[in-house]
Amino acid sequence: MTHRADRLKTIQPFYVMDVLGRAKAMEAEGKSVIHLEIGEPDFPTPAVVVQAGIHALEQGHTHYTAALGLAALRERIAQQYAKSYRPSASQIVITPGASGALQLVFAALLNAGDKVLMTDPGYPCNRNFVTLYGGAPVAIPVQADTAYQLTADSIKRHWDSDVRAVLLASPSNPTGTVIADDELGRIVETVAGLGGVLIVDEIYHGLIYGGDAGSVLKHSNNVFVVNSFSKYYGMTGWRLGWLVTPSAYLPDIEKLAQNMFIASSTIAQHAALTVFEPEVIQELEQRRDTFRQRRDYLLPALRELGFEIPIKPQGAFYLYADCQAFSKDSFAFVIQLLEQTGVAITPGRDFGVYQSETHVRFSYANTLEHLREAVQRIRHFLQK
Amino acid sequence: MTHRADRLKTIQPFYVMDVLGRAKAMEAEGKSVIHLEIGEPDFPTPAVVVQAGIHALEQGHTHYTAALGLAALRERIAQQYAKSYRPSASQIVITPGASGALQLVFAALLNAGDKVLMTDPGYPCNRNFVTLYGGAPVAIPVQADTAYQLTADSIKRHWDSDVRAVLLASPSNPTGTVIADDELGRIVETVAGLGGVLIVDEIYHGLIYGGDAGSVLKHSNNVFVVNSFSKYYGMTGWRLGWLVTPSAYLPDIEKLAQNMFIASSTIAQHAALTVFEPEVIQELEQRRDTFRQRRDYLLPALRELGFEIPIKPQGAFYLYADCQAFSKDSFAFVIQLLEQTGVAITPGRDFGVYQSETHVRFSYANTLEHLREAVQRIRHFLQK
Repeated sequence: MTHRADRLKTIQPFYVMDVLGRAKAMEAEGKSVIHLEIGEPDFPTPAVVVQAGIHALEQGHTHYTAALGLAALRERIAQQYAKSYRPSASQIVITPGASGALQLVFAALLNAGDKVLMTDPGYPCNRNFVTLYGGAPVAIPVQADTAYQLTADSIKRHWDSDVRAVLLASPSNPTGTVIADDELGRIVETVAGLGGVLIVDEIYHGLIYGGDAGSVLKHSNNVFVVNSFSKYYGMTGWRLGWLVTPSAYLPDIEKLAQNMFIASSTIAQHAALTVFEPEVIQELEQRRDTFRQRRDYLLPALRELGFEIPIKPQGAFYLYADCQAFSKDSFAFVIQLLEQTGVAITPGRDFGVYQSETHVRFSYANTLEHLREAVQRIRHFLQK
Repeated sequence: MTHRADRLKTIQPFYVMDVLGRAKAMEAEGKSVIHLEIGEPDFPTPAVVVQAGIHALEQGHTHYTAALGLAALRERIAQQYAKSYRPSASQIVITPGASGALQLVFAALLNAGDKVLMTDPGYPCNRNFVTLYGGAPVAIPVQADTAYQLTADSIKRHWDSDVRAVLLASPSNPTGTVIADDELGRIVETVAGLGGVLIVDEIYHGLIYGGDAGSVLKHSNNVFVVNSFSKYYGMTGWRLGWLVTPSAYLPDIEKLAQNMFIASSTIAQHAALTVFEPEVIQELEQRRDTFRQRRDYLLPALRELGFEIPIKPQGAFYLYADCQAFSKDSFAFVIQLLEQTGVAITPGRDFGVYQSETHVRFSYANTLEHLREAVQRIRHFLQK
């Protein structure tokens, strides 16, 4: 190979892909695999939204939209934020998934060596997006004592003159934990005081069980918010998300969106116009309740098996579990578990390096029936 | 504003957006505008493809695909290359538009300061993609004598130790010109000899009028080829393209695709499976013939008005015209033309700096009737 960018040395592949590959090979041999490694809701897109997609196609909506997206969709997204802290529709930028939104933000902010604070464990793409645009991700080890989240204090402690931004995710992947509203307020104030930029990933925001966590926009209109139609709205394969942008950054973000994406999928945008309709929201709330029931089954079941999950996660569809009672090599544990029981989970090393060899992630984006079967198989495996 | 990446200083907005904004304001006032500034086919997506999209939605294909795309689509794309130089399906990477493909290539190749040779004039996003990933675009002035394309000789002349790659586009935007097959062979050999990487944008490849330009893959399997379902296949709003990747780069490209996009639109991928069917190709060939008829009308008509278009473009749907008989400030000329006649075209400065103030681009992605009306209006304007 002639040329290879240095960034590739620090961007890791997803280890879960290895798990998935082995799982598929097992399935090809006729073995039963229960997929608890997947970061995607098991539900299809709500029927009303699918119908809207079909209607958009029938109407011939197959040309480009404006780079920032359909005006009606930007307006509709703005409207769904609480009135007291509603952003203007002009601040809403439609993107090809939350991935596109994160690309825009880091491309707009980062020069070579600029640091971005984030959690370890955290969503693996986050540190890679920072690397992609020349920045230096600073993964701060977090534990159960702060609900696996950064705090105003930890941000202050890790600040130096190279830090440009702080990235939070609430609820978090892989831990499902939420930043308490008062702490979020303190973080907003702290980052602003330090002259940094705050970016909050709210893609699992619709999936919070009990309580009503508000958006970070409640505390400031001068933050970046990344969101998506993928998780709560069940539109993963459509590839559509959005970014709420501080007004000062709009010209830069628009310029980048024009160049990087031209526009987001027109069909997906037309379909997404319907997700805020009462009947769709009602269906989504039922799904949320189903996710809550699954969490309420799986959390005590895993604890009873001997996995340590010190705090009850309030959102997303993940349980981040300490498996050191069984293994101090969580990747080997995951492979063994898969090969001996057909239960696929995600190794901790996909989410960072801090205590990752003693942690695994369970996704409960699967039916209660399958979760029960998985628990039974794991019990049998651990008793051997 | 607190932080702003330096790259934003060198990434220009599209000036045509200014033209488009003014055009829309005129239309809102009830004035007639003929759009010859648009880089998008005026045809909708072929009905068979739209139906396949609808079918995919009805079948519930709303979840993620693998990062590199549906296996069947990768296979289908590989198959459409001539047998003698067919890439393997594993080399085909499905991307969110050609934009996604260009992002992958430059993210995989470039370190800070690495140079990429390309033409001036050229598609504006190309130089911006290079800038985005820390590289240094080197825009080489080209003229009619080389059909506005790089040659093996010009590449040799501009080579230095910082050059990593050469980006060609054939047919080219904005000039519509094609690199002759023998010259393409010499370029492949030259770039390989110099130790560089060759990237060829073939997104207008289906739109060649007369002659049968083959893919660069004819000359080497060790080049990157960027292609798209947008232009020839009429799927702009679906945001789907592909990249043919030299095998050695596949692990890196897959890792980047996982991180940057997760996957491309599932619905678009299922729909695209049908574009190679004989009835769709038949419709697309008819459209190509329509484009050729438009070129054959507009080219002599513009020459007769006094625009200089020294060579007959063989592809795409653009005419790149020297307007210095009327103005040495092509941006002012474009604005005047729009405001006084309602004909919208693109100023040269969107494509580079070399002679851009004496050039404009006409797109003939509009009906013959509108082209005739536009020519009449321009004639009247120039006679005043």
